[in-house]
Parts: sequence; C-alpha cells; structure tokens
Amino acid sequence: MVPHLVTALTGPINELEQRVLDSMPAIERWFRLEWMEHTPPFYTSVDIRNAGFKLAPVDTNLYPGGWNNLTPEMLPLAVQSAMAAIEKICPEAKNLLVIPENTRSTFYLANLVQLQRIFHMAGLNVRIGSIDPEIKAPVTIDLPGGSQVTLEPIVRTKRRLGLKDFDPCTILLNNDLSAGIPGILEEIHEQYLLPPLHASWSVRRKSKHFKSYEEVSKRFGKMLGIDPWLIHPLFNMCGEVDFTARAGMECLTTNVDALLTRVRKKYKEYGINEKPFVVVKADNGTSGMGIMTVRDAREIAGLSDAAARRMAESKAGQPVSEVIIQEGVLTNERINDAVAEPVVYMMDRYVVGGFYRVHAERGIDENLNAPGSSFAPLAFAESTRLPQPGMKPGASAPNRFYMYGVIGRLAMLAASYELEATDPEAEVYD
Amino acid sequence: MVPHLVTALTGPINELEQRVLDSMPAIERWFRLEWMEHTPPFYTSVDIRNAGFKLAPVDTNLYPGGWNNLTPEMLPLAVQSAMAAIEKICPEAKNLLVIPENTRSTFYLANLVQLQRIFHMAGLNVRIGSIDPEIKAPVTIDLPGGSQVTLEPIVRTKRRLGLKDFDPCTILLNNDLSAGIPGILEEIHEQYLLPPLHASWSVRRKSKHFKSYEEVSKRFGKMLGIDPWLIHPLFNMCGEVDFTARAGMECLTTNVDALLTRVRKKYKEYGINEKPFVVVKADNGTSGMGIMTVRDAREIAGLSDAAARRMAESKAGQPVSEVIIQEGVLTNERINDAVAEPVVYMMDRYVVGGFYRVHAERGIDENLNAPGSSFAPLAFAESTRLPQPGMKPGASAPNRFYMYGVIGRLAMLAASYELEATDPEAEVYD
Repeated sequence: MVPHLVTALTGPINELEQRVLDSMPAIERWFRLEWMEHTPPFYTSVDIRNAGFKLAPVDTNLYPGGWNNLTPEMLPLAVQSAMAAIEKICPEAKNLLVIPENTRSTFYLANLVQLQRIFHMAGLNVRIGSIDPEIKAPVTIDLPGGSQVTLEPIVRTKRRLGLKDFDPCTILLNNDLSAGIPGILEEIHEQYLLPPLHASWSVRRKSKHFKSYEEVSKRFGKMLGIDPWLIHPLFNMCGEVDFTARAGMECLTTNVDALLTRVRKKYKEYGINEKPFVVVKADNGTSGMGIMTVRDAREIAGLSDAAARRMAESKAGQPVSEVIIQEGVLTNERINDAVAEPVVYMMDRYVVGGFYRVHAERGIDENLNAPGSSFAPLAFAESTRLPQPGMKPGASAPNRFYMYGVIGRLAMLAASYELEATDPEAEVYD
Repeated sequence: MVPHLVTALTGPINELEQRVLDSMPAIERWFRLEWMEHTPPFYTSVDIRNAGFKLAPVDTNLYPGGWNNLTPEMLPLAVQSAMAAIEKICPEAKNLLVIPENTRSTFYLANLVQLQRIFHMAGLNVRIGSIDPEIKAPVTIDLPGGSQVTLEPIVRTKRRLGLKDFDPCTILLNNDLSAGIPGILEEIHEQYLLPPLHASWSVRRKSKHFKSYEEVSKRFGKMLGIDPWLIHPLFNMCGEVDFTARAGMECLTTNVDALLTRVRKKYKEYGINEKPFVVVKADNGTSGMGIMTVRDAREIAGLSDAAARRMAESKAGQPVSEVIIQEGVLTNERINDAVAEPVVYMMDRYVVGGFYRVHAERGIDENLNAPGSSFAPLAFAESTRLPQPGMKPGASAPNRFYMYGVIGRLAMLAASYELEATDPEAEVYD
C-alpha cells in the first residue's frame, strides 16, 4: 500500500492503470514475497514519468535528498518506516550519524533537518557529521523558517567513525559520493554504514540498475499479464565515449539509431502517434548533469561544441566515458501548465510519500532535474477518493498515485537486485 | 513515534509530560528492545485518562472496533502497520477472514468496512465470516455514506475455518467472545487465529492485565526516573461477589476503603486537592457494562436494587462474580464542554491514530463508554506544532498526543506480557 495522494493527471485511468488497481492484493503479496528474499535499500527516491500509454522510472536515487519537500502528513509514515528500518539493522541503537553532501544550500540543509527529525522521532539521537574538509569545527546554520542545523567535523579513529563524544551504531550516508569514496569512510567494520559504499555513484552504473529493472519488470509483467515494455524504458550503452575528443561517436550514433528503431516499432505496435526520442546520460551520473535528449541519430554527429562540453563532465567533475542511451518517456503531467514528473519517496520497503518536480521552461521530453525546477508537494487524497472494495460505483475514484508507488517499489526492488549483484563482499556459491 | 495529533487539552504541559517529551529517543529505544523480547498483540485500542497530575490507561481492548472513527489521514499508517503485522505472521497470505461481532449496528458495520479496507490495501483478499447463527446465507447491507458490507456464514471443516470457496491463511477475530468461546473456533491448528482465544473476554481478566501493567509501569518508571503511580492506576480485587444476593459486599467495602486510603495518601504526597474515587468493574467485563464509580466505601452497603442489578450482569449476560476495584483517574479533557477521553489505536507495535470518546452527560469521574457517547476524530497537528530538535524556542510546541501514544503502547506491552502469562500452549521451562 502507498499513501493516497492527489495526482496532477486527471485524465481517465487507462488500461494499464486499471489493471494495476484491480490487482492490488496480488501486487502487494508479490512485493511481500520479494522482500522475504531481498533486502530493500535503506531509503530510495524514484523519478517517474507517466506518458499515458506507458509509465516508467527514469532515475533511482539511493541517497535521496529533498525529504523537506514531503508534506507534514507524510512524516508519521516516514517515521514508522524509519522505525522498521532501524529495528532490523541495529535495534539497540541510541545514536545515528548522518553524513551529508558537502554543500551549504539551504534547500539541502532543510532536507537534513527533516531527516534528523524523522530519525529523532524514530527514537535516535541524530547528529550530522560532515566529510567536507572545510568543516573544522561545529557550525550552526540558521535556516529560513526558524530551524537550525549543526554540521560537525567527522572524527575517524582506527576502527570507528563518529563525532567528538558521539559514537554511533549506524552511519547513514546522505552523500552519493560522486567524487569518489574518501578514505575516511573505508574499512568501517564495527559500525553499520548505510547505504553500503558500492551504492554510491563512484561505483554504481545506471546500466546495471536498468538491467536489474528489466529483470524485475519482466517478472512483474508476467505476474500481471502485461507487456513489460509498458513499465520499462528500453536502453543500450556505449562503453568508451569521449565527448571532448569526439571519440566513440559512431558507437553512440549506431546505438541511438538502433534504440529509436526499437521504440518506433513498439509505438507502431500500440498505435502511438508520438515521435520517439532517447536520452543519453552518463552511466555513472546523477543530479541531471551530463544528460541530453536526442530525436534523430544524426544529431550526434552535429553536436555543438557547447553541448559536447556539457556532456563531457557530470556531477563533481567526473569525466563521462560510459554512457547509457535510454528510451525517452514523455511526461503527461502538468501543474499550472508547467511540465511535471512525480518523485516517489521510500524508506525501507514502504512508500512514504512523494511530490512533483516541476519545470516551467522544459518540454515533455526533457529532463526536469535542472536549474529552475521547483517542487509541488502532493496532498493526501480525500477519503472519498480512495479505492474501496464494496463501494457503489461512482462513490470511489481510482487513485493514480498507487501506481506510482508500485513503479517506485519496482525500481527499488531493482536497486536491491543491483546491490546484491555488485556487493564486493557477497559470498559466491559457484 | 506516534502520529502528531491535536489534543483537546491546551493547558500547559506539566512536569510528567515534559519528562516524556524530553526522553523520546530513550523511550523509543526502550520499546524497540521490549518488542525484541515480546510479541505485540495483533491490534489494540487503549482508553486513556489524563488528570493533569497523572495519566493512565483505564481499558485495553484486544478486539478493537471503532476503526471507522479514525480520520482518513491515519489510513496509510494503519495500512503500513497491517503490512508489517501480516509479513510477520503469514507473508504468503492471499486471504484474510474477519470474524465480526454478532450485531447489525451500522456504526459497528462501518468499522468492519474500514478494517476490510485496511487489510485489502495491505494486500489481502478480505471477507467477513459471521459466527452469528442468524447468518445462514450471505447478506449485503447498505451503510450510510454509500458503502456496503457483506456478511457470510462461516464454514467449518474438520481442520479449517473459512467461507464457501474462500480458504484463509489468517483469521482475524473482531469479536471479543464475551459470551464464551464457540466450539466452531476451537481446535484450529492449521490456520492463524488472531488474537488467540485466550485474549477473549471469556478468558481474560482485567486484574491480570493491570498486574502486568503494574510491572510494565514500574520498569518504565525506573528507566524514566518517575514514580510509576503517575502512569498507573492502583487496584484491588474481590473474587466472589454476587450483587443480586448481596454476597461478598464486605470484601468489596473493605477493598474500596483500603484503595481510597492509598489514593488519598498519594494525593496528599503530591498536594492534589481532588476527592479520590474508585471504579468497580466486572473483572471479565467490557463495553462499559457492569461499572460503577464509588467515592466512599459506605456507598457499597447503601447500593440501590437498580444499581445492584446493573452491576450483576456484564456484556452478553455474563454474571459478574470477580470484580476489580480500580483507582479512578479524572479526565481533564473537554470537547465543547463535554467530558472526553482519548482512545489510542495501535496495529502491531505501531500507534496509528486516535480519537476522543465524548460524553456530554457524564462527569469527569465517570465512565464515558456508555449510551450517549460520541466520537471526535483527532486531526493531524500542523507541522509547526511538532516538537523538533534544533528549533528555536517558541517555534515548536510540544505534542501531548505523543504521550498518549506512549501510555497506549505501555498498556499494549502489558497485554503482551499478560497473553504470554495466560497462554495455555506456552512451554514452561521450570
């Protein structure tokens, strides 16, 4: 089950959505059984695009920021989920250390305040230990709205990580380590460091995630009796691309063309009158950098120097070499005429809420995670809008957000598969 | 953590409440460790009275009705908790059978609709199987508000309980079996029957519950450094009372007097200028029947015939013989001038919501669970009212409902101890 939130898209529920809504008990049971075999990531956010004819995750974040964008009504769900997560990992825990991104953005710091609040209410003393070398002593920062956050320098001893006079049982990373794993975080064996370091963008690859998601969507599609393409974005990849030197452009052109052809075939099969497009992304990228939309393979050869430069570096200055070419999924959602995409937030195995990422200056086929985007919180739906067994027709309206919660959890399950497959400490039984 | 709900009592937070609020992480950790050792009841509701100087549970219901009185905002929490409960018991479950009370009260039936909705959203096919001998074929009843509920006759085979063409993994009792355990529910070994039969009022005794609660409140009081009396109602009991024949009245008089003396001493210790009172209840009773308020032991001898008759029978016509004499706890809560007491709802180990039981015609020292009572749902508190670490003084107001959630969970933990102690199938390691 997911919280019932009002979604922006008010058009009629389509066949796929109806199938998902009708299959709720079977879907929930399917997840229940999956979580018996697989461990959910500690927390996850998933960007989703709903094209009307298909619905798919486009990005799965294992170090979600933006918790401050959830409405207050979602807080108890987040806390309850945090309690469930902590119980499993370290029930005797008193102290939790959060390691944030190295930024002073007040939006990001408001996210930290919210995370601190969630875990405090779940029964932990929470302090924030920065790995930013500029934080040499505790710094307290006032935030808009009257709250405060204190960043403290992290203290590493031979065996443990903590703060001065603060020894945590669990360390929660809220930093995706795009710039690489700092030595201070390595060789921690006595404490729980979550998510594990191989979930960071210094190790993770989008293509591995979507390979896992492909597997998950096939199994889910089989259970539900639907074509997995309806929930899965097709993809290809190129391993050696250098946008500055224009190396690997043939690989890119060939793969973009091949993917566009596959998508075109699918559109024909379903009678969809839209122009297919693909999105080229850094395979190790995040935060919306190093991303471009391509509608024709010939655009690759004609790429401007400025566009090539933008693609050449992703977050934290990491050079792009491996790229993923992903089927573009249109977003049909609008808030006040601005293009929007839902973002679903999960803690442990539970959906705790969501919001819309809105961008007034971007198109329905463009990435919205870019400067100028804003966030529209999702409200809880009125009780009369909840789907309800035994209700008279018309007395209950379907809830589109349920479906977003299902897709979000499928992507989270894929991340669980992905982390199992890439775990450097996994035991191999060959 | 408990949902932050607005409480009716707006007076200043007293010392006890402040201590509880300040100790949130320690309290949550304490519960976390308790639940590692003890299994929470499947679902629980607890009536709480807040006298200002003390705060205590007065009734712990292991077959809670009234789920329909929770606001829609609490539904996701209830569903998430139901998911956690089901995962532990029978993760592969597809079907859940609910056994209701034998009543056609539309209020009660609305409760069934809500329970059905909660477990449906948690991923189960839910049907309602009545043990009422009058239900011989499926009956669909229209409820105010447009919803419907279908009651079906229960079908017992040699080994299993179900409906025609419906074989559940888990059977959820929502009937407290005050009238005794029917044979049809006995000898079920292949399916989960929850709560277990020894949680029903045909076996349960209030005195055993409050004995367990005394133990829990002592341990909790020690952890928090408070006098357990501040959260615990004192009690005595009489084993052989026959109100019709006026037998056992001396025992009652003596114990009422002794208890009033103990309470008076406590009031003196704390400088409380209230008149102590005790409540005499059927030890196996429920639903507010067989209850009287006594302010002076001499009232027992002078009991009118009508009052004696009312005491002589509790719910479902069970004769009262054992009685519990419990310290009365005033309620200081008011909604529109009517006396009110908070009722806290829990599923598995989680507080999912609450409401006020309100009675315009009852006093602050009287039982409110009586004809004429109504229910006032509790709203979620505004985010600015949440207690928050790192907030500037004045920017955050304390939340009284947190404390009610703590007391509710202490009573639930006591019920867990009680059920362990009374389990007929428990293994004894002597």
